[in-house]
Amino acid sequence: MKRLAVALLATTALATPAFADELMDEAVDYFKPLPSTVPAVADNPITEEKIELGKMLFFDPRLSASGVFSCYSCHNLTTGGDDNLETSIGHGWQAGPRNSPTVLNAVFNVAQFWDGRADDLKAQAKGPIQAGVEMANTPANVEATLNSMPAYVSMFEAAFGAPDSVSFDNMARAIEAFEATLLTPAPFDAYLNGDAGALNDDEKAGLQLFIDKGCIACHAGINIGGEGYFPFGLIEKPGADVLPEGDRGRFAVTDTVDDEYVFRAAPLRNVAVTAPYFHSGKVWDLKVAVQIMAESQLGEELSDPEADQIVAFLGSLTGTVPEITTPVLPAETATTPRPTAEVLPQ
Amino acid sequence: MKRLAVALLATTALATPAFADELMDEAVDYFKPLPSTVPAVADNPITEEKIELGKMLFFDPRLSASGVFSCYSCHNLTTGGDDNLETSIGHGWQAGPRNSPTVLNAVFNVAQFWDGRADDLKAQAKGPIQAGVEMANTPANVEATLNSMPAYVSMFEAAFGAPDSVSFDNMARAIEAFEATLLTPAPFDAYLNGDAGALNDDEKAGLQLFIDKGCIACHAGINIGGEGYFPFGLIEKPGADVLPEGDRGRFAVTDTVDDEYVFRAAPLRNVAVTAPYFHSGKVWDLKVAVQIMAESQLGEELSDPEADQIVAFLGSLTGTVPEITTPVLPAETATTPRPTAEVLPQ
Repeated sequence: MKRLAVALLATTALATPAFADELMDEAVDYFKPLPSTVPAVADNPITEEKIELGKMLFFDPRLSASGVFSCYSCHNLTTGGDDNLETSIGHGWQAGPRNSPTVLNAVFNVAQFWDGRADDLKAQAKGPIQAGVEMANTPANVEATLNSMPAYVSMFEAAFGAPDSVSFDNMARAIEAFEATLLTPAPFDAYLNGDAGALNDDEKAGLQLFIDKGCIACHAGINIGGEGYFPFGLIEKPGADVLPEGDRGRFAVTDTVDDEYVFRAAPLRNVAVTAPYFHSGKVWDLKVAVQIMAESQLGEELSDPEADQIVAFLGSLTGTVPEITTPVLPAETATTPRPTAEVLPQ
Repeated sequence: MKRLAVALLATTALATPAFADELMDEAVDYFKPLPSTVPAVADNPITEEKIELGKMLFFDPRLSASGVFSCYSCHNLTTGGDDNLETSIGHGWQAGPRNSPTVLNAVFNVAQFWDGRADDLKAQAKGPIQAGVEMANTPANVEATLNSMPAYVSMFEAAFGAPDSVSFDNMARAIEAFEATLLTPAPFDAYLNGDAGALNDDEKAGLQLFIDKGCIACHAGINIGGEGYFPFGLIEKPGADVLPEGDRGRFAVTDTVDDEYVFRAAPLRNVAVTAPYFHSGKVWDLKVAVQIMAESQLGEELSDPEADQIVAFLGSLTGTVPEITTPVLPAETATTPRPTAEVLPQ
């Protein structure tokens, strides 16, 4: 299989450090730049055929019972890979329980969802499709839908190398393959790759504060977060407006008291374009979100200029979205299950 | 201003007639192939700047009150330029009154909407954005939204050549400019352009029937329809399942008894990929739709092979969708009006 290059990375990355400085040395200890190739994922070799099929599935509203929602609806590639809503609106105009996280660079998170309940993107992809408040579909109905369109059947066979390859699991694998290509190299990657001029003075000051104040304790690595689980409100619990009492986070996954109000640390790539913030989606202003984090997690009262500088640094994590052409999907046939807007009792 | 070429047309069109035949001579009397350049529209010179801005607006869910719906939601470019639903689902999970028509090639329709109540695409674009059952927004809120994002303000100024260019009207002009580029050259265009081999024997037989049976009385010209208004049920009224009594069509526009159950003849480009059919969206099978039309409009009982051949001909109207890259939209700012899913009384 040939290597799949992330085309845009090449234009911002330098091969060798140019103007290295002390801060850069520190930064490369904590963070990792995006790779120049599509990353490998567990149990799912990524091929061009899977990516192409996965892109079609990602855009296909017929994966929802109503025919209204696709993966793209809440992970909108035009608006930072999320939907810019407090929580997503889904089937029957129901609001989802948590803010939709960006799909961009999500392949590098340790696990998926705010509580990490899905091990990887292929496990994640099956969730919203079946959730009653999101796409409200069933695996059997999805399989019937895909099997009803010969062009999809051929693409599944090409992607998975066998007849009868249409399955809910393979659908999820193809979507994972497409999503693994959604990497957004940013100025901060150029900096980590050795270009000291990629960040301006404010951004560098913000990076220094981000390290010195201790933000890096949770937000490090390739996604500047997304690598581990931490209690929200470690030092001081934020108000119920930001941290609603009813959502106890990872406790619902592990049933362990230690995991009450524990969430996966948010990955911070593209954070400047993916408001509103937190699992509750209650905060629209990035500076306010930074201040809440400093107080609740670190017991730090940031000065106004400090908060501004950290926000400036976070802006350097906004990357270049890969060029995506909208796919042309196969037309329904006589056997395609018809969409239904009906809301069934859960 | 430089001419905007329709890139894909070139690959299917021959410059000179190659294997002309009698049927072709007849066809060119009734139909017109798509042009190779973006058509001019009234009061709205089309420029690259307007097209680029219009594409962003077309994809932007923040044009809806809820932040859930964009033009693209119901005029989905992955599924034939419509939403493949009986009638669209909009704000508050409300169903729209009529089937969403395709945006592809819509620039050539005599007027927009099933009842022709909008003169052109820029008038049309303002409708769904304000409709309570669709995007449920107001011009003032749209303008506040666009003005809150500096990147949009600059693009409006570049497209309209003056400061303070952000307006609901200019938004509609830009959307019209983008939509005017959505032309889908099809095998039938190659045929009209002189390539007798572009249609197979079944398709040609269907074309001959389409002419001889009289379908061309309403479905002619560049869009094979979309040029005039005709009563649905001219010879024999279809059942209320297909033609619901409550929707009296163009009567609501002209308040003239002659216009009861009068609709704009459906433009038939891409009809094979834009089920379900009719303003009611009640018929999913194209062959059944053809049979209903033959009976209700022409008093003709088509034989099974005749209906199949007409369907084959209609398949030759499925064109190549232009390559669209998903735009990257500006991020909201502190002054961007927040989305609301609330359903207000109309």
